[in-house]
Amino acid sequence: MTNKSIEATQTKNHQNMILTPKKSDIIYIRRAHYHETDQMGIVHHSNFIKWFEEARIHLMKAIGTSYKIMEEEGVISPVVSMFCEYKTMVGFDDEVFIHIEIIDYNSIAFKVKYRVTNDDESISYAVGESKHCFLSKEMRIIALKKSHPHINEIFMAEFTKNS
Amino acid sequence: MTNKSIEATQTKNHQNMILTPKKSDIIYIRRAHYHETDQMGIVHHSNFIKWFEEARIHLMKAIGTSYKIMEEEGVISPVVSMFCEYKTMVGFDDEVFIHIEIIDYNSIAFKVKYRVTNDDESISYAVGESKHCFLSKEMRIIALKKSHPHINEIFMAEFTKNS
Amino acid sequence: MTNKSIEATQTKNHQNMILTPKKSDIIYIRRAHYHETDQMGIVHHSNFIKWFEEARIHLMKAIGTSYKIMEEEGVISPVVSMFCEYKTMVGFDDEVFIHIEIIDYNSIAFKVKYRVTNDDESISYAVGESKHCFLSKEMRIIALKKSHPHINEIFMAEFTKNS
Amino acid sequence: MTNKSIEATQTKNHQNMILTPKKSDIIYIRRAHYHETDQMGIVHHSNFIKWFEEARIHLMKAIGTSYKIMEEEGVISPVVSMFCEYKTMVGFDDEVFIHIEIIDYNSIAFKVKYRVTNDDESISYAVGESKHCFLSKEMRIIALKKSHPHINEIFMAEFTKNS
Repeated sequence: MTNKSIEATQTKNHQNMILTPKKSDIIYIRRAHYHETDQMGIVHHSNFIKWFEEARIHLMKAIGTSYKIMEEEGVISPVVSMFCEYKTMVGFDDEVFIHIEIIDYNSIAFKVKYRVTNDDESISYAVGESKHCFLSKEMRIIALKKSHPHINEIFMAEFTKNS
Repeated sequence: MTNKSIEATQTKNHQNMILTPKKSDIIYIRRAHYHETDQMGIVHHSNFIKWFEEARIHLMKAIGTSYKIMEEEGVISPVVSMFCEYKTMVGFDDEVFIHIEIIDYNSIAFKVKYRVTNDDESISYAVGESKHCFLSKEMRIIALKKSHPHINEIFMAEFTKNS
Repeated sequence: MTNKSIEATQTKNHQNMILTPKKSDIIYIRRAHYHETDQMGIVHHSNFIKWFEEARIHLMKAIGTSYKIMEEEGVISPVVSMFCEYKTMVGFDDEVFIHIEIIDYNSIAFKVKYRVTNDDESISYAVGESKHCFLSKEMRIIALKKSHPHINEIFMAEFTKNS
Repeated sequence: MTNKSIEATQTKNHQNMILTPKKSDIIYIRRAHYHETDQMGIVHHSNFIKWFEEARIHLMKAIGTSYKIMEEEGVISPVVSMFCEYKTMVGFDDEVFIHIEIIDYNSIAFKVKYRVTNDDESISYAVGESKHCFLSKEMRIIALKKSHPHINEIFMAEFTKNS
């Protein structure tokens, strides 16, 4: 239950110094909807959890599979844990950039890291981390390496790229 | 697409006159949650549609069945149409009383009427009406009279009571 | 990599017949999110009401104002009534095209019509209609013609174009 | 016929052994709504974050204040961080008991711990933890000890009781 897991790993460099090559982020972009605000006048915190899901689904397409296909092939991937640290309030119609990365994968479970920023990354709205496992339709734990090797390869390739 | 369907049928009588016996309403009571407000400082209108669903599910229990059982027995009941007229804004933590009534039923479809009020009905927050059909798990239209006579009887009894 | 809504002009013509000039629709495009599905395996009906709001906000930008600016200038525009007829179920990750049109406007209130289709309009997912008024921050009814003539002009121009 | 959340005292004792006196939990009880399920056939994980908020608001009433009053007195209390670990899936119409406790408080911020169980606590659905600060309406950090001593006392008393 400790949440020290998050480091924002700010790679922004305003000074135009020579940089080591930067891994390209997968970024999911969307605007905050009016129906996502609350009477505090900002986006309700529960929506970040929904945005993280949208970003994961975007990531799966970006790396060459899709959560829709996975479910059709009999894999469901529930959330095991979810962490979010809120840093700056997001207002109605603000555009957010969700940088998403697979930071752990072992064929049975995976971890995802999120950074929510504005376009030029000068504002950090939130950081987050979630853990997910894989289940069969009968809700039994499966190892993709055995049950769905082609999906395993896609996840492993993406994870390896990042590490 | 015409929405003239709604009459609030206010039966309130502050003067304690002699009244013809009044049908007893089925009432679903709940409070407005903070996460249901928007930056207008009131409950977002989309939540009334969710509240109507909660009230329908409450009604099904109140009349002797339950939507959970219906689904387990292979009946799903999607929404065909939905109307809501918003009359008074609902604020955070306000308690709403949703008066709900089956106003039409014919074994293939049913109509429900909603009145959202405060406790003593001095405030009318909203009125609504929705139409629903019955489908099998294979998404085919079914007539409860044939497919599920015991559920048909429950709906018919409630509808007859009201008409 | 973005999830942007776009404005598009309807150019579809299956028969290549000579057509009378057709009014150009304003279209809001978006995908159904996983968190919008319910255990019926389809998008929950309450989300259409949220989508309609997103489409209205898209329309306001498309015609030259924005709901954000309107609120900043002291105009809020609550929903007076909402109607939706559900015709075809929408599944996870389906792309929907929400055709939106101002069908009535008189400086005090306006009506909007919605058609939710797939890309080539071969599927009609839903149709809807909503009514809205204008309030000051103090929740008093206002006539845009007097209080905000520049916004009045924008709405009137769009409405006149359609009628 | 109501759907009320209740406060209850934990009295469960399977073994009827002599127990050391146990702190009484504040418990928020509610049922999972149909509109909270997703196509996995379970409650969508984002709803736990909303339930935690409902439980916090319940707790504030239980200890002698209310979030509504706090906002009216100029205190808003945004979420700084949120953690949830999902242990057992919750299905439609399942009743959940959210045990909630203030585990840290220092006039500037507080931490809350959540345990989501069934009625006899034989099932653990989820555990969670969140951190919150206090802001003025102008979104400046405030210390309740100075700005709102009567609210400070209530929070401090509850925190001290638990520690």
